[in-house]
Amino acid sequence: MTSAAGAPGAVPDGAGFDRAWSSLLPVGRAPTGGYHRLAWSDADLGCREWFRQQADAHGLTLDEDHNGNQWAWWGEPGPDAVVTGSHLDSVPGGGAFDGPLGVVSAFLAVAALQAAGVAPGRPVAVVNFSDEEGGRFGLACLGSRLMAGEVDPDTALARTDPDGVTLSEARSRAGFGDRRPGPDPDRLGRIGIFVELHIEQGRRLAVDGVPVGVATAVWPHGRWRLDFRGEGNHAGTTAVADRHDPVLPLAHAVLAAREAAATGDALATIGRVEAHPGATNAIASRATAWLDARAPLPEGVRAAVGRVEDAARAAAGREGVALTVAEESWSGGAEFRPELRAALAAVVEGRLGKVAQLPTGAGHDAAVLAASVPTAMLFVRNPTGISHDPAEHATRADCLAGVDALVAVLASLCR
Amino acid sequence: MTSAAGAPGAVPDGAGFDRAWSSLLPVGRAPTGGYHRLAWSDADLGCREWFRQQADAHGLTLDEDHNGNQWAWWGEPGPDAVVTGSHLDSVPGGGAFDGPLGVVSAFLAVAALQAAGVAPGRPVAVVNFSDEEGGRFGLACLGSRLMAGEVDPDTALARTDPDGVTLSEARSRAGFGDRRPGPDPDRLGRIGIFVELHIEQGRRLAVDGVPVGVATAVWPHGRWRLDFRGEGNHAGTTAVADRHDPVLPLAHAVLAAREAAATGDALATIGRVEAHPGATNAIASRATAWLDARAPLPEGVRAAVGRVEDAARAAAGREGVALTVAEESWSGGAEFRPELRAALAAVVEGRLGKVAQLPTGAGHDAAVLAASVPTAMLFVRNPTGISHDPAEHATRADCLAGVDALVAVLASLCR
Repeated sequence: MTSAAGAPGAVPDGAGFDRAWSSLLPVGRAPTGGYHRLAWSDADLGCREWFRQQADAHGLTLDEDHNGNQWAWWGEPGPDAVVTGSHLDSVPGGGAFDGPLGVVSAFLAVAALQAAGVAPGRPVAVVNFSDEEGGRFGLACLGSRLMAGEVDPDTALARTDPDGVTLSEARSRAGFGDRRPGPDPDRLGRIGIFVELHIEQGRRLAVDGVPVGVATAVWPHGRWRLDFRGEGNHAGTTAVADRHDPVLPLAHAVLAAREAAATGDALATIGRVEAHPGATNAIASRATAWLDARAPLPEGVRAAVGRVEDAARAAAGREGVALTVAEESWSGGAEFRPELRAALAAVVEGRLGKVAQLPTGAGHDAAVLAASVPTAMLFVRNPTGISHDPAEHATRADCLAGVDALVAVLASLCR
Repeated sequence: MTSAAGAPGAVPDGAGFDRAWSSLLPVGRAPTGGYHRLAWSDADLGCREWFRQQADAHGLTLDEDHNGNQWAWWGEPGPDAVVTGSHLDSVPGGGAFDGPLGVVSAFLAVAALQAAGVAPGRPVAVVNFSDEEGGRFGLACLGSRLMAGEVDPDTALARTDPDGVTLSEARSRAGFGDRRPGPDPDRLGRIGIFVELHIEQGRRLAVDGVPVGVATAVWPHGRWRLDFRGEGNHAGTTAVADRHDPVLPLAHAVLAAREAAATGDALATIGRVEAHPGATNAIASRATAWLDARAPLPEGVRAAVGRVEDAARAAAGREGVALTVAEESWSGGAEFRPELRAALAAVVEGRLGKVAQLPTGAGHDAAVLAASVPTAMLFVRNPTGISHDPAEHATRADCLAGVDALVAVLASLCR
């Protein structure tokens, strides 16, 4: 048995890599190739069963907490554990890598260390955080934020999906109804350090020609729902002067979001819109747009949202349409600790020969945990930058490089 | 037994009016008060059953054709029949009167003539045209247009609803799978004259202070589907320059439709929009808008659609998004025969003391039939003008005035 230092004999197992991916890839995949692994859906439950099987196959001890997060322990469950992992849920029609890459890589890194006979100097765990995307109930990073006490459990349980199913009902249907969600200081307290590996959701590493990078920061971001209430009427008989069409101010909001992003340092996007009742020959009675906004600083996000709201409110006023704006989620982002990311960058560079450090506009459980425990992130190169789409991709070689980097990082942290 | 001339003893039966409405109103009504009587849905089948019961209660002979239209005959089924009626289906979330008012009034008018002992000089029928709204498969006036040979049956059968169910499948589920739709010259040939009574879908009669009017024309109108194909991506990491967001040109199309209506003589409306996959934190990969456009003349409709398409195409080009525009339906409208509408106006004025003549932008089966047979329409006052919405309304007194006018018109035509 070797010491963990450097773990030179611990290398990713290509055959194990292929086995792990081929067992996970069919779960929740649509005929079009996109993934629909929304929280507590059958596909999500399939992913959770896959996690249990992986834990068992690697001789790890399974622990499933009351917030839906899954933990697989190598050694005692804390304290001062090195925890690594990500999430297995997806946005509607998402890609294969956003989330799963971090969980698959975590199991493979543990396997590589085990195969090399490494005896870790502190507990190690693989984690699957529940409902990271918020793709069903609109609350991102819900599993980690419930654990950290950042979300009121009753508010979360009352949230509904687009079919009107509450989170409470969805948990019950999934056989999880007897577990009450809420703060979990015990499990949070077991984490000595958290490292999340994730596919990059941009092209920075591709441009730099680097397979694996280290995160410097996660931008603050939030989600807002704009509800426009007008007056339904016949599309073929209602004079323009008599119309109160909620789709018009919605359109102005869409354009204002782009304008705010194009002329500021924020990103602002409306990717989900609805008009009711949705008849071609009827003026809609109400319409809803969901706004996603992010920026390096919170005030940048607020400024972008303010510009969208101002434009929407002015257009709604002209049309005689009522507008309500609700903040559905807010994440203050995270600046990762400089000394930790420098140390990890050195380890990755030592292993792979090069490294990059970069921020991201994407939200992650790592940003939630960073408020409580030392936290770091590794990014794996994404050749097109496409994410949250079936075309999201990373090469097999880069994914294996990511596992290799994670092996070295875990070995370094377990010294 | 009196002659039909004038039918002075034939008056609407208020108690019968209340019974007819109270038996129909619960069918397909949502808890919010709106109606969802989409073609071949359970609610539509409930309406069809109601029609059978009404035919039976009035001693009329039921005939259901292969296009889904229902006929209730007083006397022999043609030739040279006076046919009156409308449709029982609704748009999603529609009102109680658009369609049903014409069918209910037709049965009540026949009942009034029967009660007065009128012996009609020619066959009379009440009709329920199938799928007038096109609220499920996107083809308006489908029952009458199939009968008239204006729509290819195979094209219609292959159309899908928002859940992906084809018209063919929907007909089969409704027990109608063994009837092949298509041209029906025999039934069309039985019609000597068609009179459709309908709630007004505007405020013209309310402004004029007239309970019942006669239609001069139905504007030409059509429906177009604009499909924008962009590139799905992460909303929080994709730079503006790398985006191909299909929701942006959709927004430009919405604004262009309003601009075309506000500055031309057309009406142009986008009341149905979709963005896929519909995740808050993802740029949509594709988006669709449905455009409804109408004008007094076909070239006015084409000009409005052209302006919307030009604006959408320019915006799509700037965004690197592909746009396809498909005409989903087209109706050339109808100018009703001046001598017939003058005669009907005289009858209505003689009965009610006043009348108005007015065109409409709404499509109707009457406009389809007008190409083949003498056709006329009566409108009943709508105090708010609201239609295609649960708030659509006509007073009981005006509805009874409409029946009274229809009694006089039928009596006049049956002389």
